[in-house]
Amino acid sequence: MDTQNYNGGTMEGGKREKEVTGGGGGGGVRCSEFGLRVLAFALTLAAAIVLGVDKQTKVVPVTVLSTLPPLNVPVTAKSHYLSAFVYFVVANAIACTYAALSLVLTLATKGGQKGLALIITILDLVMVALLFSGEGAAAAVGIIGYKGNSHVRWNKVCNVFEEFCHQTAAALVLSLLGSVAFFLLVVLAALNLHKKGK
Amino acid sequence: MDTQNYNGGTMEGGKREKEVTGGGGGGGVRCSEFGLRVLAFALTLAAAIVLGVDKQTKVVPVTVLSTLPPLNVPVTAKSHYLSAFVYFVVANAIACTYAALSLVLTLATKGGQKGLALIITILDLVMVALLFSGEGAAAAVGIIGYKGNSHVRWNKVCNVFEEFCHQTAAALVLSLLGSVAFFLLVVLAALNLHKKGK
Repeated sequence: MDTQNYNGGTMEGGKREKEVTGGGGGGGVRCSEFGLRVLAFALTLAAAIVLGVDKQTKVVPVTVLSTLPPLNVPVTAKSHYLSAFVYFVVANAIACTYAALSLVLTLATKGGQKGLALIITILDLVMVALLFSGEGAAAAVGIIGYKGNSHVRWNKVCNVFEEFCHQTAAALVLSLLGSVAFFLLVVLAALNLHKKGK
Repeated sequence: MDTQNYNGGTMEGGKREKEVTGGGGGGGVRCSEFGLRVLAFALTLAAAIVLGVDKQTKVVPVTVLSTLPPLNVPVTAKSHYLSAFVYFVVANAIACTYAALSLVLTLATKGGQKGLALIITILDLVMVALLFSGEGAAAAVGIIGYKGNSHVRWNKVCNVFEEFCHQTAAALVLSLLGSVAFFLLVVLAALNLHKKGK
């Protein structure tokens, strides 16, 4: 309440001081925003590529008849066999494209246009939701692949496709870090607006 | 840019007008915030309960020997058999508890404390991430249960447990609406701060 009363007054000195602090803080905020956006771009790009190209072929011995020796059959695991992984890759690709576009936009306008900054904050928030849903989906399927589930008789597959599963886990960590970057971008925007609103 | 110059000036009349409009808008924002928080509470509570109590027992005919008639065995589907569903219920329970707490806090302080408002906005954002990851996980497992996956030999279960699957879908829709409410709360806070910062 104190701050509001203070702002309601007409003290010129206080006003000027606020403007100067705001300007100095703005540079730091812009630097952090730039760094976070580059990070978000790189991490989501890496996540999309790592899971997108994830593929492992393994020769599995299959017993056809108990009296015959097992047949060696090559079996392939691909990320696009599972819809959750496809969604994860698409979500990360969208987030990565958006990160690049928003980076160009914020650099071009130098953070001057307030309306644009608000739209970018809302889109950052959309990316948080999109990425976290993709990560949730990929993690849920990954856990069933890793542990299996006896209740619904879904057998684990990670004992066969170890490398495939490791690559999936790596993509998940990368995407998680990317979504944290988007999360921090929204927090930063809120902090920045909060500081200006004081 | 026009607005910035205008704000930089010392026109008393314009200032007073802005304060009045700000006050009126603040009331509307508080009303919307209240409504959205109540909605978020109700929807996430309903989602947690609907999936939490989701259980279906069905008598399934099991063929033991082809020469004998099939045996009727009761089989039960419970939401806590799948870790993704447990995560979904826990996420919705946390979001529901937080919605209730934040509702009490915003009503008690009447939106006066700016620092608290900022913390609540950041926690709303955490709920967006938490809920969307839970929904992604539950949806991914739900889709496998509904369609099955031939590549990893995970059979569909929704042809047997229809009611269970319908209840899961209902919980997902409720939670999705709840997370949209949290999403809008963050957007509202950003809009509000943006308006004050002008």
